[in-house]
Formats: sequence, structure tokens, C-alpha cells
Amino acid sequence: MNLHVVILAAGQGTRMRSALPKVLHAVAGKPMLGHVIDCARGLSPTRIHVVIGHGADLVRQTLDAEDINWVMQTEQLGTGHAVAQALPAIDAADQILVLYGDVPLLQVATLEALSAQAGAQALGLLTVDMIDPTGYGRIIRDAAGRVQAIVEQKDASPEQRQVTEVNTGIMALPGSRAAAWLNSLSSNNAQGEYYLTDVVAMAVEHSVPVEVAQPVDEIEVMGANNRQQLAVLERSYQSRQASRLMEEGATLADPARVDVRGDIKVGRDVFIDINVIFEGRVVIEDQVEIGAHCVIRDSVIRSGSVIKAFSHIDGTDVGNECDIGPYARLRPGTRLQRKARIGNFVETKKAEIGEGSKVNHLSYIGDAVVGKEVNVGAGTITCNYDGVNKFVTQLGDGAFIGSNTALVAPVRVGAGAVTGAGSTITQDVPDGSLAVGRARQRNIDSWKRPVKSSD
Amino acid sequence: MNLHVVILAAGQGTRMRSALPKVLHAVAGKPMLGHVIDCARGLSPTRIHVVIGHGADLVRQTLDAEDINWVMQTEQLGTGHAVAQALPAIDAADQILVLYGDVPLLQVATLEALSAQAGAQALGLLTVDMIDPTGYGRIIRDAAGRVQAIVEQKDASPEQRQVTEVNTGIMALPGSRAAAWLNSLSSNNAQGEYYLTDVVAMAVEHSVPVEVAQPVDEIEVMGANNRQQLAVLERSYQSRQASRLMEEGATLADPARVDVRGDIKVGRDVFIDINVIFEGRVVIEDQVEIGAHCVIRDSVIRSGSVIKAFSHIDGTDVGNECDIGPYARLRPGTRLQRKARIGNFVETKKAEIGEGSKVNHLSYIGDAVVGKEVNVGAGTITCNYDGVNKFVTQLGDGAFIGSNTALVAPVRVGAGAVTGAGSTITQDVPDGSLAVGRARQRNIDSWKRPVKSSD
Amino acid sequence: MNLHVVILAAGQGTRMRSALPKVLHAVAGKPMLGHVIDCARGLSPTRIHVVIGHGADLVRQTLDAEDINWVMQTEQLGTGHAVAQALPAIDAADQILVLYGDVPLLQVATLEALSAQAGAQALGLLTVDMIDPTGYGRIIRDAAGRVQAIVEQKDASPEQRQVTEVNTGIMALPGSRAAAWLNSLSSNNAQGEYYLTDVVAMAVEHSVPVEVAQPVDEIEVMGANNRQQLAVLERSYQSRQASRLMEEGATLADPARVDVRGDIKVGRDVFIDINVIFEGRVVIEDQVEIGAHCVIRDSVIRSGSVIKAFSHIDGTDVGNECDIGPYARLRPGTRLQRKARIGNFVETKKAEIGEGSKVNHLSYIGDAVVGKEVNVGAGTITCNYDGVNKFVTQLGDGAFIGSNTALVAPVRVGAGAVTGAGSTITQDVPDGSLAVGRARQRNIDSWKRPVKSSD
Repeated sequence: MNLHVVILAAGQGTRMRSALPKVLHAVAGKPMLGHVIDCARGLSPTRIHVVIGHGADLVRQTLDAEDINWVMQTEQLGTGHAVAQALPAIDAADQILVLYGDVPLLQVATLEALSAQAGAQALGLLTVDMIDPTGYGRIIRDAAGRVQAIVEQKDASPEQRQVTEVNTGIMALPGSRAAAWLNSLSSNNAQGEYYLTDVVAMAVEHSVPVEVAQPVDEIEVMGANNRQQLAVLERSYQSRQASRLMEEGATLADPARVDVRGDIKVGRDVFIDINVIFEGRVVIEDQVEIGAHCVIRDSVIRSGSVIKAFSHIDGTDVGNECDIGPYARLRPGTRLQRKARIGNFVETKKAEIGEGSKVNHLSYIGDAVVGKEVNVGAGTITCNYDGVNKFVTQLGDGAFIGSNTALVAPVRVGAGAVTGAGSTITQDVPDGSLAVGRARQRNIDSWKRPVKSSD
Repeated sequence: MNLHVVILAAGQGTRMRSALPKVLHAVAGKPMLGHVIDCARGLSPTRIHVVIGHGADLVRQTLDAEDINWVMQTEQLGTGHAVAQALPAIDAADQILVLYGDVPLLQVATLEALSAQAGAQALGLLTVDMIDPTGYGRIIRDAAGRVQAIVEQKDASPEQRQVTEVNTGIMALPGSRAAAWLNSLSSNNAQGEYYLTDVVAMAVEHSVPVEVAQPVDEIEVMGANNRQQLAVLERSYQSRQASRLMEEGATLADPARVDVRGDIKVGRDVFIDINVIFEGRVVIEDQVEIGAHCVIRDSVIRSGSVIKAFSHIDGTDVGNECDIGPYARLRPGTRLQRKARIGNFVETKKAEIGEGSKVNHLSYIGDAVVGKEVNVGAGTITCNYDGVNKFVTQLGDGAFIGSNTALVAPVRVGAGAVTGAGSTITQDVPDGSLAVGRARQRNIDSWKRPVKSSD
Repeated sequence: MNLHVVILAAGQGTRMRSALPKVLHAVAGKPMLGHVIDCARGLSPTRIHVVIGHGADLVRQTLDAEDINWVMQTEQLGTGHAVAQALPAIDAADQILVLYGDVPLLQVATLEALSAQAGAQALGLLTVDMIDPTGYGRIIRDAAGRVQAIVEQKDASPEQRQVTEVNTGIMALPGSRAAAWLNSLSSNNAQGEYYLTDVVAMAVEHSVPVEVAQPVDEIEVMGANNRQQLAVLERSYQSRQASRLMEEGATLADPARVDVRGDIKVGRDVFIDINVIFEGRVVIEDQVEIGAHCVIRDSVIRSGSVIKAFSHIDGTDVGNECDIGPYARLRPGTRLQRKARIGNFVETKKAEIGEGSKVNHLSYIGDAVVGKEVNVGAGTITCNYDGVNKFVTQLGDGAFIGSNTALVAPVRVGAGAVTGAGSTITQDVPDGSLAVGRARQRNIDSWKRPVKSSD
């Protein structure tokens, strides 16, 4: 039995009040549909079919990939009609799993259970028990517990309304029956739509077994029709991430105040203070401390490093036992060797900083290669840009850059060389030399301080 | 029927442990009494009477306005006595709505319903159903549902204590009865005070109908007697604001981590990351992204702009498609044209920045007029202050300011002009010229690095 | 009756997934065992005995103090065995209170009640009523309410499982019985351990009265076996701190977003905005405002001062009515006099700043003594370090330091003296003088701007 996944993603989502198609609204920085596709991939299906309509071009462009068959639903004629659009590409011997592009927190294990439960011949339904099932289609079972029907809220008897097991819409269709069933759907209802749910009645009528699976957590089957619901999904997702980080060995100062948007790996004995945001691919090794209010994106923080509050780290490799921040801004291409130190109000970009080197205060180090044990004084600027081209600054091992130095690239300060405070360095400094480029101080005592202008 | 609002605001609030009168304690940065006055204004009443006592001068000074009649209650003799102080200014044909200066979350719609329900002749009571009514005065109704009495906790029978409908103290008095009733109040009770609540018994006795309205949400009638209760009100208020922002079209990374202190308008498809604070009057147009941990006050952020983390924006007009931060500090009088870019550790103040111009790193741009497509290098400082006067710096279109430049105002760098890195510019630079003001570099090779002093 | 406290702290805590012994995991920045020891100290016991095993050296080294008797338990043979290790140091006439190094939120008052309840002769048990007691040992009482036994979950009858009063493990042992009881413990159980709990059966058997006390809050007796539980303790602890701050007179913008890690005292009418972290010993005097996202450690903030958002203050004395931040980074040894002002992107370290003096933008002031009414311009750097030694910069009263000035220490700028913008000051400036150290500006009009390199 091969598995095909059909994801319904054609809706507009007017209640989002948005120019963006509903399925592109993001949870944890990734479109809801992206989460569903990733979940589908976890099942290693033969193919993933995504049915698109509203904003089809943008949806496709945003999430296009080799393993996706984009299926256009030009008219919005209901869920049954949507699934039918994908049928031509699916073999009758296969199983069809129907998912929704706005139900992003579904877990692979839940779908595996549903698929296995249904097998190639049965109809599989994912149902959930709700404390308050009002508004949802109830699962009606016979005395033997076999599913007999799904009854919508408006059609339900008082007794049926007591049922708390409800339909999630997520189902596994036997390919052998799908075409016949979907072709038999009627749009003779208030909305004039072809409803996928109606196949359940057909299965019962045709004595096709209806098998049921349930998710571990109700949130897995919740969708987002407006931004409030989107926020509920976001918080659930983040809560799940926080639990995972703690299980893996991170202490979180507050599990309700951490945000993970991407793939993050944490080592053991990592401490993550409040309000830290992780984005993209981030690796945090053992015994790293991350201070409050940091943003860390697409970076590696190696063992024993300490990142202090208010640091913003992107595309950076922070070596072992480095000491970063507070207020350090490390931009892409920064690579710090062991025990490097980047202090407050310092920006780096495409910068290699050698072992034990320090850039402690108020500096911009861009397009630079800095050796070992270099000390860069406060207020140092690499003048790497002439308006059109960028140039490299090199600082040799053990160099000492005086405070308030402008390093006009391309330029090299040699190993063990020193620059005087307040200098503008435009030419290379040989190893071990002192370079000074500043004017002589004059003190003028016959001097009147300015007075308040009369305006 | 004219409407008069009487707001009781004379209390001290000893449980606040504060030098500030209770009604001046703030929710969302505005005194509680300010919220109540604004709510009253929503009813367009003939006049708003605020009864003050403790800290009267400070209260009046803080919130004075043309539409307020400040009424002094020199002795704290109870709520009935307080309302009586305002009576001389109110006509017998009018309706009197009694509010409380420490009950700040009341909604206009709730009061409109109460006022309409009561009309000119009836007594109107605002009541609320509480899950745990312990300690509150219960609303006792007869078999027909007519209000018979308010019975205080200590006087209530076991049966009466089962009643969950309680008095909020907020009421609408018929002006035709008010004087007679308030004059009849007795202070023959444990506190020796004249209680407004006692008018309910009088109304029943005089066969004046007692009409009831209820708020949408219990929080509307909650007051703050201590800072814990104040925090509950604050969080409720903020939760309401977060919901509103989401309804209007903003995605909030975490609705529990956004703070709105003032009037904010958001467009569609706005993204607001965690821990953002809005203060004063803020307009956020469509498709703006606001990064984590930002503070935005009295500013406009125009369509398509991106504000990165840790930015602090006050009194600023950010044009379309600007790129701001992280760590940008925009102070009042900053006006950015389309596609301007302000980067990390940059402060601006009274600065016009032209279209496409960039101030990317570690700069202070104050009292400046910057043209289009200007590039301001890292570490640039406008020296706008001589200790007594402030002067303007002008940078022409397409100018390129080298890194670590000091621009000593008043000074003008012409269109297309360039300043060399590390220069102090004290005189105007003609269009298209290069200005350099720095010393020649000398390299000294016979040089000994300092040694550790012996102390 | 003397009191001895025995704290069991030998466990490894494998579910923490940590290289750190369990009791060293921190709540509010202090090891759990440190909280327990501090609680024990609140009882003024004769001696505190801490039984250590896993990671014994590190535990001891981390928390060593004069009043602690460290007792080694070389084999992990159960709680009864652990307590027995401490017995040699305890007199038979004394009372023994048994606590746990991973149960950190216990309150002194709870233990005082337990100790008093038990006295010198009885066995005292701390029990707690749980909504869901599943898994805990139930307290079985006779008809008269006397404790008869503790029955573990697996041994409990259905009726016994209904009991919601459970054993916390915390107990007071009469010294007169302890040795006999502990020697009689058997390890004939599934784990092969000597369980302290078994002494309850012995007490009943020997007709020793069993007295019971209960904590005010269930959280007091909760332990942490994994990081999720540690986070629950952390949040409970922080919630308690937030309540305390509000009771003392601070308004918290959000009680769920404040973190106290150490001892903090707040005055009246203090405002603390969201996400502020306090660490170490902090004193906040009356009418101080602390902005959002600040970190304050080991500092005093005196009356009327305003700390703006994103400030990081450590080891600093902020005088009255100072104005700090946003983005101010005050490092240890900073001492600000009244009405001093430190602005954005400014770092200070070992700096005395006189009354009314201002360092408003983008500066580093280290190892400096600054007089009164000094104005330090934007981009000023004290060049205090020559690579090996640090030197002091002195700025006299009323001095005016021009923007972008490098002050090469040791150096003194005299009272009322001025330095020109962009100067490097290497020699002392006499009182009232103007010092300039910058090159003359040259404008070059025959100048071609660089063109894009061909790479």
C-alpha cells in the first residue's frame, strides 16, 4: 500500500483580515502549510498533493519543492471537491490521507496511527474528545462501538449533542473507494458545497469498516481561522518546544518566555534566561549560558560560552568559552575562536576573531581578520567601505589597537604592533611597530566659552 | 433627560502604600480616574462631576479639563455624602450616573445600557454575577424578579448568601429623587458613614422601579485597593488591547507579551514580536514588522517598514519601507523618508533623513538635515552642541561620510561630497569635493610596549 | 531542647540530564540546597548537617560555611541510612529536623510549626493535602485522628487511596529515639534501601505520639526531579517575590514578568516595567522608575531616579534623581551623584560622575573621576588601558568635552576647560583652557569617487 497525502490549502481566510492566503500565516515563523507539509514528509509518502486556490501563485512560490504536486482548485466547491482534484494522480490501490493547510500542529505519530488503523481497505477517521463539543460534528457509534455516522450540530438530537467525540475532518481514504465516493457527493445543502464528511455515510452504507484514531493532544487538530486562534497555536507550539528543550538538558528561566522558530539543538546544562528567541538553525552546545532578551539566529554557540543580555547573533560561529555581550551584535560571517570576547555596543560582520582576542566596547569590526590575543580599543572602526567596494582589515597576533582608531581598509596592522589612540590608520603597520596618526594637542588659554545665542 | 456623571474620587487608598492618591494610580500608564473620565466622556454627558478629597490638588492638576466640575468633599463621610456634594450643580429633571474613580475598566456600552434601562424615573443598578460572591452585597429579588433589597454579607441569611448577583455600587439615580433620598440617609452604622446603597431601600419603599443592567465582563466593575488588584486590572486591560490588535489585523507573537499604553492603530498584516511596548499615539501601517523588545511612543511607522529588535522610537515618523535597528534609538523630531536605514547603536534626534539614506552603525545624528542616498559611515558624530547653543548639520544628496567623522555644526557637506575617514569637519564641503581633516600616519619601529607597573 | 537540621543532599538526579549534582541546580540563581540551608538557618539550629554523596566535593565547595557539618554518605542506601550518617554528631536530647536538598521553597514558619508541634518527645510529620495524591504515601489516621501509618500507593487499599493527605518526607525526629529507630530499619524491599518513612510505623508501635503540621502552600514541599519541575519551582518562587514587591509599594507592569534573584528591597511608589531582572543585593528607593527589559545587579538606585529601557546596571550606586538610559551599561565601581545623566550606548566602569554631569551618547568612561556639571560629548572615549596598565582620567567641574574626543589617561581636563570635537587629548588641560588636537581640514575638489572594482 502506497500512501498519498492530500493537503487542502485553497481557502482565503477572510477572518484573518489579511492580504495573505490563510495557509501562509505563520506559526513559529513558518507558514501553517509548511508545518503540515513537513508533518506529511514525516510519513514518507509516495507524493504530497497540495490543493491550492486563493493566492495559489504565492502559496506555491513560497513552499515549492520537488516532492509536492500542486493541484489547482479553481472554484471553491467544498472539501470533497478539493480532494477530488487530486485523484487523477493517485492509484486506486493507494491510501489517501487528507490533511488541512490551516491545521499545523498535527504530529507524525498521530497520522501513522491513523494510517495503520485504516489500512488499505477501511476508512480512517481522526476524532477527538472535546470538553465542549458544541458546533462540531459528533461521532455516532452503535452499541458495538462501530462508527455509524457523523451528525452535525444543527442536525443532532439532544442525546447526540451529549456526545463529546467529534470529527476533525482529517481522514484516511481507501484509494479503491475514493473515486466512487467523491463522485457521489451531493452539493444539495445550504452552502452548495461537496463535503468530504459525507463519505462516512457512504462507507457505512457500503459496509466499509470505519476505523478511528485519536491524537495525543487536542491542539494537534485545531485550526486557525483568525489571528486569535493563530496565537493559541503559536503558544501551544512554543510550549511544546520549551518542554523539549528542558528534556534535552536546558534550564529555562521561564518556559513561557522562550521562542523557538526553527531547528534548535541544545546540549546539557545549558541555561536560557527569559525572553530569548531562536530562529533558523541554531546549535547550543553544553554548558552555554544565554542571557535575557537575546536573539540568536542560524548560529552555533560552542561549549562553555556565555552570551550576555541583549545580544543579537546571526550567522555566527561562537567558539568555546567565548564571552559575548551585553549588547553585542554579531552579524553573518562572524567567526570567533576560543575565549574571544565581544563586549557592549560592538558590531561584527564577516569577521574572524582569533583566540583570546577582545573587542570590548563601541566598535565596528567588519570584513576583518583578527589574530590571537589582539586587543581592540573602545571606539575602533574598520572603515571597510568606500561607497562602492568593501575591503579587508587584518590585525596580526598580539596587536594592540588604541581607542578611537579608524582603520581604513585595505590595511594590515602587524603582529605585536600598536596604534595610538585617536589615530586614523591608512597604511600598513609593520610587525611590532607603533603607528600614530593624530594631530598634536594645543592648549589655548585665551579662550572664551560660547554664550547663549540671542534667538 | 440630561445626563450627569458623578465620579467618586476622594479616597486615600492606604492599602496602596503610596504617597499618591489612589485614583491617580495608573493602568496602562493612565491614572485610573482618567480611564473613568474618558469612559464618562463616551456618554456625552451634560457635565462630569468629580468628587475629590485626599490629594485633591494633585488629582485636579493631573486631570483638569473644561468638561469637569471638581467638587470638594472635605470630610470623608461615605459614598452617599460624596454624591450629595455634587447635587447643587445638577437639575432635578436629569439622570445622575454614579461611577468610581478606582474602577477603571468600565465600558461605555455598559453604562449606556444602564442609563437607558433606568431612564429618568427609575433607579438603575449595575449588578454582576460572581462565582464567589462572598463579601459583596447580594441583590435580593422577589418572585417576579423585581429587586427588593441589597443585603450586605454580614446581614445575609444562609439562603441569601447563596445569591450570586451582587451590587457593584454603580448606579443611575433619578434627579427627581436624588436630593430627597440623599438627605434621608443615616450614618447610624458601624463606620458612621452615609451609604449610597441605602437609596435602594428607599426606592423600593417609595415604589420607584429598580432596573438592573449588567456588564459584559466582570472585570469592568472591579476596583483596585492594592497593587495586586491594580496588576490584575492592568493585565485585563492589556489582554483586551491584544485582542483588539489581533482583530484589526496584527499577528502577535504572544498576546500575553504586548503592552499598549495609549492609542494605537494597526493596519493589516502587521507582525508584532514579543515584549513590544506602545505608548502615547502610535500608528502602525500595513505590513509593518516590529521586532522583539521594542518601545514605540508617539510615532508613525509607515507601510512596509521593518523595525528590528531592541529599537526605541519616540516622536518619530518612519517612512515607507524603512529598515530600522536593531538597537536603533530614534528620538523626537526624527523623520525618515522612504527606504531610509538606521542601524545598530545609532541615535537620531531632530533629524530629517532622506530617501534611501543610511546611518548604519554607532552614530549620533542630531539637529541634522540629510539628503537622499547619503551614506553615513560608522562612528559618525554630529557635534551639534557647544555647551549652550545647538547647530544644524546638512548633508547633501549622495554625500558619503567616512567612518569616524566628527561633523562640527553648523556645517554643510555638499551633494556628492565625501569626507575622509577619521576626519573632523569644521568647514563646509563644496558639492562633489573630498574633505579630509586628519593627521598623517607615522610608523615608529623603535618602540617598546608598556610594561606592567609595579604597584 | 536543641535543634539539629539534617539535609539530605546526596542524590544524583539523573532525570536532570546534567553533569551537576541535583541539589546544585538553581532556583532564582541560587542552588536548591542553598535555599534549604538558608531556610534551616532561619530556625537558628544548633547545627546544620548536610549529607552529601554524588558530586560531594562540588556541593561542599559551592556552599561551604562555618555553620555546616558536611556528612559523607559513600553509598546511596536510602533516606534512613542518610540520616543515620549524621547521628554521631547529634545528642540524644535534641530534636532532628530532616529536610531535602531538592525541596527548596520550604518556609521557616512551616518548620517552626512542625518543630513546635513535635517537641522533644514526639515524631513530627509534615503532611500536605493534595487534589491528586496518586503516587504519594497516604497518611492513615484512626478514628480519633491519630496517625497510624503511612501507606505507599502500591500497598494502598482502594479506600486508602481516597485519602488526600500525603507524606512529604519532611519530619522531626526525637533524638532520644532516632538511633534506635534508624538502626532497626530494614532494606528488605524492592529497592534494597533503608527508608526513613519506616520510622513512623516504629513510633506507632512504641506508642510515641505522631504529631502533624502542614505547610501554608503545597509548593513548599515540592521537589525537582527534572527541569520541568525546576521551572515550576522557579515560577512559584518568582510569583512569591512579585507579590512581596507589590505589598512593599512597587507597581509591577506585569507580575508574571519580573525576576528576582537575590535580595531586593523596594521603597514606595516604585514602578517596575516588564521583564526587569534583579540579581544579588539591590536597593530601590522611593519613587524610582525602572524601564522595561533592564538588568540590575548589586546596585543601589536612589530616590527619584529614572532608569530607562534596556539598561544594564551592575555594582553601581545611582544617586538621587539621576536619569539613566536607554541602553546604559553601568559596570562595577560606577558612582553617580545627584542628577547625573547617562544616555544611550554609554558604558561606565569605575567612574565617579559628579552632580548634574552628563554623558549622553556613545561613550566609554572607565577609570574616571568626573566633577560637577560636566558635559561629555558623544563618542568620547577614555583611553584608560595601554595593554597592561590602567590609568585614571579626571574631568574638572564644568568641563566641556567635545564630541568624538579620545582622552588618553592619565590625563586631567581642568575645571571649566573645553576640548575641541574630534581631539585626542594626551596632556593635561589647565582650568578654563581650550584644548584642540586635530588636523586642519582640507577640501579637495579634483577628486574622483571610487568605482566598483571589477571582481
